[in-house]
Amino acid sequence: MSQSPKSPTRIIDCDVHCNPNFESPEGLRPYIPESYRTAMELSMGTRPGHGYSHPNGRVQRPDCDYRSVEGFERDHIDRYGITYAVMQPQPTMDFSLIHNIDIATMLCRAGNDWLVDHYLNRSPRYLGSICVNMNDPAGAVREIERLGDHPQMVQILAPGEASFLYGHRFYHPIYEACARKHLVFALHPGAEGSLNSSTSVGRPSSYFEWHCSLPQTFMAHTGSLVAEGVFEKFPGLSVLLTEGGYGWLAPLMWRMDKNFKALRATVPWLREAPSSYIRRHVKLTTQPIEEPSDPAHAIMMMEMIDAANTLCFSSDYPHWDFDDPFRAFPSRTPPDLLERILWGNACDLYRHKLEPLERARAADPASLPGTSVVS
Amino acid sequence: MSQSPKSPTRIIDCDVHCNPNFESPEGLRPYIPESYRTAMELSMGTRPGHGYSHPNGRVQRPDCDYRSVEGFERDHIDRYGITYAVMQPQPTMDFSLIHNIDIATMLCRAGNDWLVDHYLNRSPRYLGSICVNMNDPAGAVREIERLGDHPQMVQILAPGEASFLYGHRFYHPIYEACARKHLVFALHPGAEGSLNSSTSVGRPSSYFEWHCSLPQTFMAHTGSLVAEGVFEKFPGLSVLLTEGGYGWLAPLMWRMDKNFKALRATVPWLREAPSSYIRRHVKLTTQPIEEPSDPAHAIMMMEMIDAANTLCFSSDYPHWDFDDPFRAFPSRTPPDLLERILWGNACDLYRHKLEPLERARAADPASLPGTSVVS
Repeated sequence: MSQSPKSPTRIIDCDVHCNPNFESPEGLRPYIPESYRTAMELSMGTRPGHGYSHPNGRVQRPDCDYRSVEGFERDHIDRYGITYAVMQPQPTMDFSLIHNIDIATMLCRAGNDWLVDHYLNRSPRYLGSICVNMNDPAGAVREIERLGDHPQMVQILAPGEASFLYGHRFYHPIYEACARKHLVFALHPGAEGSLNSSTSVGRPSSYFEWHCSLPQTFMAHTGSLVAEGVFEKFPGLSVLLTEGGYGWLAPLMWRMDKNFKALRATVPWLREAPSSYIRRHVKLTTQPIEEPSDPAHAIMMMEMIDAANTLCFSSDYPHWDFDDPFRAFPSRTPPDLLERILWGNACDLYRHKLEPLERARAADPASLPGTSVVS
Repeated sequence: MSQSPKSPTRIIDCDVHCNPNFESPEGLRPYIPESYRTAMELSMGTRPGHGYSHPNGRVQRPDCDYRSVEGFERDHIDRYGITYAVMQPQPTMDFSLIHNIDIATMLCRAGNDWLVDHYLNRSPRYLGSICVNMNDPAGAVREIERLGDHPQMVQILAPGEASFLYGHRFYHPIYEACARKHLVFALHPGAEGSLNSSTSVGRPSSYFEWHCSLPQTFMAHTGSLVAEGVFEKFPGLSVLLTEGGYGWLAPLMWRMDKNFKALRATVPWLREAPSSYIRRHVKLTTQPIEEPSDPAHAIMMMEMIDAANTLCFSSDYPHWDFDDPFRAFPSRTPPDLLERILWGNACDLYRHKLEPLERARAADPASLPGTSVVS
């Protein structure tokens, strides 16, 4: 054992790092059994604390050139005859989950300006989502003030993962600003598990299980918004739950209404049954569409949630689980209901911004493709 | 300012406690506005870190003398003609949540012996739940070995709150023992929020909201048990979800089956669609019964979850939200389905213990009230 001439003694260093690369042939790869290599590539869970992500990365539709606006318009918007598209830029919707509050708020602002430049200025068919840092309510309100009057900005957008359940009064200044500016409060799954454990009890161990559990977060936020009296405090607020499913809504409303009968003295700020707040203030998007083995059950479920007034079409372009507006719904879906889902309910939801846009189109039909049917 | 003759200097003590009683007239009570006194009495949330409990305490049915076995038998078991009653002693089902592992395991053992003495030895109409400390799998297995062959012990009982989702392999030795002893693994809500936050995101602020969110925990555990392959590893294991509702099961199965089509390569240990594991291995109890405003929706929902093979009656005696077997179900519930719910499904679930009991009754009809209809 050598001893440095500079040292009075031999030395033991008790914390020295070396960093084998997980994937490289010089690193861990040769030490990982072949069967596990595939599994690890599929599960993407190779780093401690890694979140949940799709096994093939962010899989995109193979039938789209999603890398350019022109490809998007040709392969999606024009192919399906979509009159208005509500843009949900990624990853800006998840900026609320960045721990550095100032960076996150700045990035939201940058993302919103990018959206205006690249989509809203391109065509009035593009409607915008203002991404805000939910973890900085004062900063979020400033961003809503700055962009909320833009004629195509129809909503703010927040991730399902959050510091608190969204009924918490920490967020109420944001809802006050939304209601005042006629902006919908939209939720989208976003990095569930990055702050909390993504379920009530603990962390799922696979992307599959995590993805199956996402509706639970939406159930919790919906229950919280109702139970905390957000819709009594902000009667003008509307909420849109995107990509969280809708089959869970009926049993949630049943349970809340039943418990309200027994426990209303404990929530005296609620003046109506929970389901009536939900029916008036909450809408949901269709993708990923519920697909029971018996399609009749999907139609029953739509009836149970009053889909004619609650459900709005969404494609989730260009993701792996994209829904086609002409193929996603059961063939026996009543045509009137389908019209409400594809057009009517979102028209109602975004009416404060859509009515002026539709008036402009009536004055100049060339301004926007499609037929005006706003009632 | 005084100075002790024993001290070389004057003294400042920077941490001295005083303890006003919340309720007493000498304590905080006179300082709390009248309107809040009622609210605090109702919400029971007066201590930091306090859990969620019913505003009127553990409200019991007013029509029962629940304080004695004789009252219980007169006012519940005999009144409704209940042939077998599966006893779920409280608070022993929550002992898993005691942080001291040795105390918790000992208390489970004590609670189980109490149950044998007070109910199982009294009559074969009482079936038992072995309460185990889920936080001590080795201790839980010892308790299952000790009592699992008791002819009336039909299941083990664990709370919804847990250190891990119940699919986690930490618990697998318990499931191995259950399957070997033909004991059902039964879950019941129990102190959700005492270890985790009781929802995916954060803590509800009211008992009302907390109670409405309980099904989310059951959804998470069900998804975990399936996704982690517990039913492939222990094909003899059956799970009973008590008091967590059942309306959520259909959309959970739909979502899991749909995702399984896209993601089965990431869960190669699953050889069947998630819903087929659920239909074969999971049953649910009815109380608190789902009560949609349109009773036809309840019957539709029962069809969606194949209630004729999954749903078992439970009263939740003697709690505030008790269900009467003759009044809880929609009047148009098909009689065959009602027979499956009140009797048949639980007979199937507990068949390994019920068949010998029924044979004993056939040999000596006086041994147990009621009519034998086990097929």
